[in-house]
Amino acid sequence: METSVHCKGNERSERFCHFENLCYHNEHKDFIFFMANASMIENVPSDSQNILDLSSVADHTLHFFSFLYLPSETMTDFTVKWINRRSLIFNRFKPDNIMHILHDDILPLHHTLKQIKGNFKLNRNTQEKFDIQILTFEDWPDDIEYQFLYDLFSRHDMLTVNSLKKMGELVCFSDVYVGISKETTWYQYGFYVPQGPVPNSKVTSSQIQDTVNYVLSHIDTECTLCNLGPYLVLLSRKETRRILNEMDLSISIAQHIGMKVLSVSLETHSLVDIINLIRNSKGLIGMHGSLLALAIFLQPGSILIELFPFAINPAHYTPYKTLSGIPSMNIYYANWVNTNEENTVMHPDWPPELGGISDLKDQQEIMNQKEVPKHLCCDDPSWLFHIYQDTIVDINTIIQLVKTMLTASINENTSEKARNIVAGPVRDLNCVTEKNSIRVKWKAPWSLRYIPHKTVQYQLFIFNTQLNSTTSFLITNTIYTYNKTEATYSFLVWVQCQLDNLKGYLSNLVKC
Amino acid sequence: METSVHCKGNERSERFCHFENLCYHNEHKDFIFFMANASMIENVPSDSQNILDLSSVADHTLHFFSFLYLPSETMTDFTVKWINRRSLIFNRFKPDNIMHILHDDILPLHHTLKQIKGNFKLNRNTQEKFDIQILTFEDWPDDIEYQFLYDLFSRHDMLTVNSLKKMGELVCFSDVYVGISKETTWYQYGFYVPQGPVPNSKVTSSQIQDTVNYVLSHIDTECTLCNLGPYLVLLSRKETRRILNEMDLSISIAQHIGMKVLSVSLETHSLVDIINLIRNSKGLIGMHGSLLALAIFLQPGSILIELFPFAINPAHYTPYKTLSGIPSMNIYYANWVNTNEENTVMHPDWPPELGGISDLKDQQEIMNQKEVPKHLCCDDPSWLFHIYQDTIVDINTIIQLVKTMLTASINENTSEKARNIVAGPVRDLNCVTEKNSIRVKWKAPWSLRYIPHKTVQYQLFIFNTQLNSTTSFLITNTIYTYNKTEATYSFLVWVQCQLDNLKGYLSNLVKC
Repeated sequence: METSVHCKGNERSERFCHFENLCYHNEHKDFIFFMANASMIENVPSDSQNILDLSSVADHTLHFFSFLYLPSETMTDFTVKWINRRSLIFNRFKPDNIMHILHDDILPLHHTLKQIKGNFKLNRNTQEKFDIQILTFEDWPDDIEYQFLYDLFSRHDMLTVNSLKKMGELVCFSDVYVGISKETTWYQYGFYVPQGPVPNSKVTSSQIQDTVNYVLSHIDTECTLCNLGPYLVLLSRKETRRILNEMDLSISIAQHIGMKVLSVSLETHSLVDIINLIRNSKGLIGMHGSLLALAIFLQPGSILIELFPFAINPAHYTPYKTLSGIPSMNIYYANWVNTNEENTVMHPDWPPELGGISDLKDQQEIMNQKEVPKHLCCDDPSWLFHIYQDTIVDINTIIQLVKTMLTASINENTSEKARNIVAGPVRDLNCVTEKNSIRVKWKAPWSLRYIPHKTVQYQLFIFNTQLNSTTSFLITNTIYTYNKTEATYSFLVWVQCQLDNLKGYLSNLVKC
Repeated sequence: METSVHCKGNERSERFCHFENLCYHNEHKDFIFFMANASMIENVPSDSQNILDLSSVADHTLHFFSFLYLPSETMTDFTVKWINRRSLIFNRFKPDNIMHILHDDILPLHHTLKQIKGNFKLNRNTQEKFDIQILTFEDWPDDIEYQFLYDLFSRHDMLTVNSLKKMGELVCFSDVYVGISKETTWYQYGFYVPQGPVPNSKVTSSQIQDTVNYVLSHIDTECTLCNLGPYLVLLSRKETRRILNEMDLSISIAQHIGMKVLSVSLETHSLVDIINLIRNSKGLIGMHGSLLALAIFLQPGSILIELFPFAINPAHYTPYKTLSGIPSMNIYYANWVNTNEENTVMHPDWPPELGGISDLKDQQEIMNQKEVPKHLCCDDPSWLFHIYQDTIVDINTIIQLVKTMLTASINENTSEKARNIVAGPVRDLNCVTEKNSIRVKWKAPWSLRYIPHKTVQYQLFIFNTQLNSTTSFLITNTIYTYNKTEATYSFLVWVQCQLDNLKGYLSNLVKC
């Protein structure tokens, strides 16, 4: 019995591997690859450590995956417990925080499971749980609060590295995928450069909606409050980073907007209740914080108002703004930051992890800052100090923001049109050389009559092969005569159809 | 009903896409993506033409895949024939040539099908045909000679673009993959740079063996001749690029080596017979040509002798040498080139596609060449002229080559050892700072006792953080005292275990 592996991806942060007969040694805490001549090792260097990221957070040294090699004959030296169900091993990144759970684990997990199953939407209607054994390999405790979110995805109880220990010396997986998709992630936390959007993120709103729909189909969506007319949800923090005039804010918004405001918090509501309330709301208002990640559950056309304490530059902390800006998410986002130092309440005496700075020499300097300097994750004292301030928010300004965003969402939503459809290439492109001119003709793309549009134009490109230069003309006809300045010139021509100024496919090239 | 797509790969030559509800318009010869708001478009630009290569030959303009967009509502305007079986669309590259069939189509196809099925070796024992509808989209005729090779891979009759025409206006695939793996290819044909090995090819011998085993399990492997003692196979070409003293060569090898030589050709044997004969042989001898691709069917430890006509530099045409050199293929390869102009027979009067040059001005220049200059594919007159020469081969030299290779294969095969297994990281690495020295200790990797080896050494690395320089020592102990030249120096240390001089994994770093 030997191990084999096939990986996709050309470098560590892109790699995802499928093993046959991968084992884990409980005592030594090592994965083992039992090597024989029949072992297949595909698309991964056979002698490298740290071949992939176990979590969706790229290049985090605590989440690298490695295995040791042993000769396959030695497998008989061990007591083996076999897991023969198709399995997936990955690391949760920070499963005590709902933002991290959703962004780092749940969305990537669902995407990964769909990939493994080999379909992406076929699951849509049945929404069956996946028939896969999930093993999380980091050593978070087995009883984390939001475990139920992970449990939505598999018909089988999740294994943790702790639970493996009870299984004996060696646990072997006959058919196991290792790693987790990064395709749905949109934010990086500042381990190497200050936090910000993932460059070239591939996430799409339909991926997020697909996971949201999956989650909603597996939780209890009964919600009495949800049906009592339109409302906004105000996320309330009870301990830190509080809105000190929260009650006033809530009442004032309700009065001026004419919409109920439901105040929710993890202290007073279950996560499932909050998800349902958000799902059925017109939008979400709250201090910057992990609960805002629940904005993924907002309906398209909802609003999201993010509030920041004094000295925090909203442009530097954009996980929720970035989320709202994913094309077709259709979340109307605005933020407000406290610029009035009198309205902030500082807590220099709190413990350092809650922003306390009483032990620091530069305490006064931090307290005098007007803006937190850019910083890396995860324990910058200035950042922690300022983000944990309480704030008396500017109610009038926030009401104006809410009004503006609601109006924008209503206007744009009613005028919302179908996704743009580009024209195909023109047909039968033809170019005839005459003495002092060339005559170019073509036919409209055949698909034109199926695509709603107001205007059709053609961009005709004429490349002079002697002069090495391109001229182009935007015309409405399908014929064009171009005068040659020299009789010997020759040309390459091509055409691009534009519907309502949207550029379509390029035609082939023709010579004349 | 809308279309969706999920792609893997970040650029065209790497891309492989999975569509839901992709349609093909027979009259306009266009694939159609029916766009709606619910369409998922993942990991592919939504407005680009030519999104992937349909064949395994990278960047070939005749094999790009594109589709047009239409609004999803318009699907009802068409007569639709649905194909609801999971399908695969790809292009064969040149299915009239056995080298191209195997390298460009069959190996990539098998690899792709395993990927789609989500396993890579699980198929090994049952060797069932794949439950997938294959559609080849290039327009080779439906009745190609080696169709049976493609038919080994699916339980369902292959569709061609021709066969789609009979199905009506629109043919829609509810679940279809588009593209084909390039992971198993090892050779490029010189479309952009002169032909040669694929840079950074990912092919492995186990991939090739897996496909070979699959093919052998699906063809008739009865072979009477195969059991009549050890023999070599001599590939015989009857029309072009002939060995003019083939009979002498065959008899002489048999006499001097003491092994039968079976002469085979497509004119006298079926392809299946040739495959069986090669599979059971000790090796293969033949003029450079596509039949040598059947070397994939050689057993590990076999020999391959490739012969070249006059003026052909073997170093420039290496598909079979490259194949033989894939790690663990274990094919003992040598080549011979005719360097004696008197032993070549030229055919300047043949048609140009068979190397005729009678219509060319530089006819004499080509005939005088001592080496074909490097060139691109596919119709270089000098290349075609020289490769189609007939040759009187140097029998004695070839006999020596055969002898040498057979001896090498026997010697190396009997001494062949298991695949090298690298040691894991050392354990409990510890570094203690003393006044004028540091003392580093560690324990051997736990896996050591399971890995056969003769010697164990440790490379100890000591990085001086002040001087920014690394020293290293190769020692057999697991303890080392290193003298500091300055008491204030501090260090990072790590250790790498070497078994029989093979470098193992790096340990973690410790400071002192």
